[in-house]
Amino acid sequence: MKAAILSVGTELLFGEITNTNSVYLSQQLNLLGCDVLYHYSVGDNPIRLKETIQTAFKDCDLIITSGGLGPTQDDLTKEVACETLHDELVLNESTMKALEDAFKRMKKTMTENNKKQAYVPSRAIVFDNDAGSAPGFALEENGNTIICLPGPPREMTRLFERKVKPYLESKIDGKIYHRMIRTIGIGESQLETELLDLIDNQTDPTLATYAKEGECCLRIASKRETLEEAEQAVNDMLDLIKERIGEYIYSSDDEDLVEVVAKLLMENNISISCAESCTGGLFAQTLIDIPGISAVFDRGFVTYSNQAKIEELGVKEETLEQYGAVSSQTAMEMAQGVQKASGSRLCISVTGIAGPDGGSEEKPVGLSYVGVIFDDKQVCEEIQTRNVNRKWNRNTTALYMLNIVRKIILDPDYQ
Amino acid sequence: MKAAILSVGTELLFGEITNTNSVYLSQQLNLLGCDVLYHYSVGDNPIRLKETIQTAFKDCDLIITSGGLGPTQDDLTKEVACETLHDELVLNESTMKALEDAFKRMKKTMTENNKKQAYVPSRAIVFDNDAGSAPGFALEENGNTIICLPGPPREMTRLFERKVKPYLESKIDGKIYHRMIRTIGIGESQLETELLDLIDNQTDPTLATYAKEGECCLRIASKRETLEEAEQAVNDMLDLIKERIGEYIYSSDDEDLVEVVAKLLMENNISISCAESCTGGLFAQTLIDIPGISAVFDRGFVTYSNQAKIEELGVKEETLEQYGAVSSQTAMEMAQGVQKASGSRLCISVTGIAGPDGGSEEKPVGLSYVGVIFDDKQVCEEIQTRNVNRKWNRNTTALYMLNIVRKIILDPDYQ
Repeated sequence: MKAAILSVGTELLFGEITNTNSVYLSQQLNLLGCDVLYHYSVGDNPIRLKETIQTAFKDCDLIITSGGLGPTQDDLTKEVACETLHDELVLNESTMKALEDAFKRMKKTMTENNKKQAYVPSRAIVFDNDAGSAPGFALEENGNTIICLPGPPREMTRLFERKVKPYLESKIDGKIYHRMIRTIGIGESQLETELLDLIDNQTDPTLATYAKEGECCLRIASKRETLEEAEQAVNDMLDLIKERIGEYIYSSDDEDLVEVVAKLLMENNISISCAESCTGGLFAQTLIDIPGISAVFDRGFVTYSNQAKIEELGVKEETLEQYGAVSSQTAMEMAQGVQKASGSRLCISVTGIAGPDGGSEEKPVGLSYVGVIFDDKQVCEEIQTRNVNRKWNRNTTALYMLNIVRKIILDPDYQ
Repeated sequence: MKAAILSVGTELLFGEITNTNSVYLSQQLNLLGCDVLYHYSVGDNPIRLKETIQTAFKDCDLIITSGGLGPTQDDLTKEVACETLHDELVLNESTMKALEDAFKRMKKTMTENNKKQAYVPSRAIVFDNDAGSAPGFALEENGNTIICLPGPPREMTRLFERKVKPYLESKIDGKIYHRMIRTIGIGESQLETELLDLIDNQTDPTLATYAKEGECCLRIASKRETLEEAEQAVNDMLDLIKERIGEYIYSSDDEDLVEVVAKLLMENNISISCAESCTGGLFAQTLIDIPGISAVFDRGFVTYSNQAKIEELGVKEETLEQYGAVSSQTAMEMAQGVQKASGSRLCISVTGIAGPDGGSEEKPVGLSYVGVIFDDKQVCEEIQTRNVNRKWNRNTTALYMLNIVRKIILDPDYQ
């Protein structure tokens, strides 16, 4: 099935609300094996709404609308759907009864325009809405189907889950399976270059790359007769990909890097403390976002001034003078200071130039040094981010720090 | 001008990302006085992309696309825009130079597909992208304009703000002036209640309220023949509003609270240090996001464990035992510890329950205590956030801390 998602409501076109209905419906339809080809948003305008439905049916045989089913004059989705698929609205007795009961319960008077909601297309399959007043429905004509759902996300998702999904499952062949692979340390174009033959030759499974801030994602998807076959095809492809770029993969299940690292620390009960200069608390705060981290996270130092590095971490004045605050020597002394203060098994430090100022030819903006101590192992890593801006440099540096924690725990050869 | 917003990327159709670009562009275009008639999302498919552009131009004379300008094979927006508006791609020397320089700085190899990004339509007005590698551009034909922007929201918004907005302003009749008023400590419904008569009677200037995480915004906009008239109308309205809710306003120029606070600290040369438990470095990292803050920010402590509070800040064991880690007593001792260690003029601490666990009837999730010392003044404030989730509680607590810093500096009666 080829599908379009059509959101109706002028508030979308004013940017007053974010279209989360399209996200939900896209995920659900893809899981059912439908190809979603378009998202459309239109205002409460019957002419443009009708034209959009007709345009969508050129390429698609399924349209799911949300919004425009309410009691007010500008709610016109039902009328337009009916007109486009050559049907007429008739009173649905059971919906009318449910509406009357609801108004009685709320001790409110049912106005004339509320009764409008009890009218549905005569050929429609009606989906009763137990979370709101507007029912949904499916209307078919010559192999084309339009499914109209209410706009409020809570009503829409409830109705989809309970009524629309079983209705669609009965109409669809094949099952789909997909995995999202997360990588760090490899750019999107290099990733594509490494996998070019696989991407070029793809039919099923399909491969797609996505750039995210500081990292890269790869989606593998397959549609087969059974879920088991689709899963097998995806996992075989994943094995091939791991052979080529395995060192960059930190999750095959769409986890964030901080989740992966926090889990590693918590499952292995590895205590951690840190000292940050340029990231200024970002590394600590990212980890502390994870519930339960208090079991392993002991303390952090934001030693922004040189004085703070000396007083809190015992960094030597000579080191700062001789090598500078941004140097591998300072980073290692910072990490050693954290270890002395906290006694944590894993101690990590960072000192760098976040920008926009403070860079030089020798030490450009975006450069940092990370010192890390894990049990007896001490490593210092130099990081150079693409200097986008201060925020980006700091975010990327904190991501790389998380990755260094991951590597020093998992990789016995890391040095 | 009648506009359509066209988002390009298969990841949208899979529901993998939420379309925030359409929200931003809708808001911006409406502010410029454009009518947004449609949102479209299509995948990386040249045929459907071309058809959608042609469909949009039936009703609209402006299309803004985002996405599909990257270096990979499936990035085709530029090619399709070119074909639809009968132009051809040519090498843009200055973009190529910028790309080469960026790769040199990152010490990375520039692959063949990266060079693709330096090609733009021959008739295009090019918008250089200093936050990423793909430039944006505007291409016109017979009164129709297509503006193609990169997909990553950070790049897109930056390009829009700096390049696209001035370009569009020069094409639009009438002048629009608007101000975004930022408030903290007042909810959206209370704000609306206070201003109800102004909102109900609005024609020009118009008023609109927006809820943001932990705060509330109010937009005042006017469209007049001249910019001076529009500006005058907006500022007169602002004076009226200040009389009613002035105490909650922290910016009349859409500044973030952290910018306002950082400016206060830097302009008055007030040194600051902090100690954080529940926010875990978030307060420090938020401040350190501001360039130049090193002139006043000295150090921060992330004292997550009780041991860290005792060892780094000299919090008394008896205090922790008698009142608990989340108490005004602990917060004040933390602030005093920061003062002793740093000697900063302004020292602030926080200890609280971020959740999801750890709350009790007496001390529910979302409760924190903030201790603040400014010269001779010592204040402890209790904060209770609406418990949405861990992240929300921590973000809101850090915002309130910033507001406490603002108040203790500005308000001589604050206590």
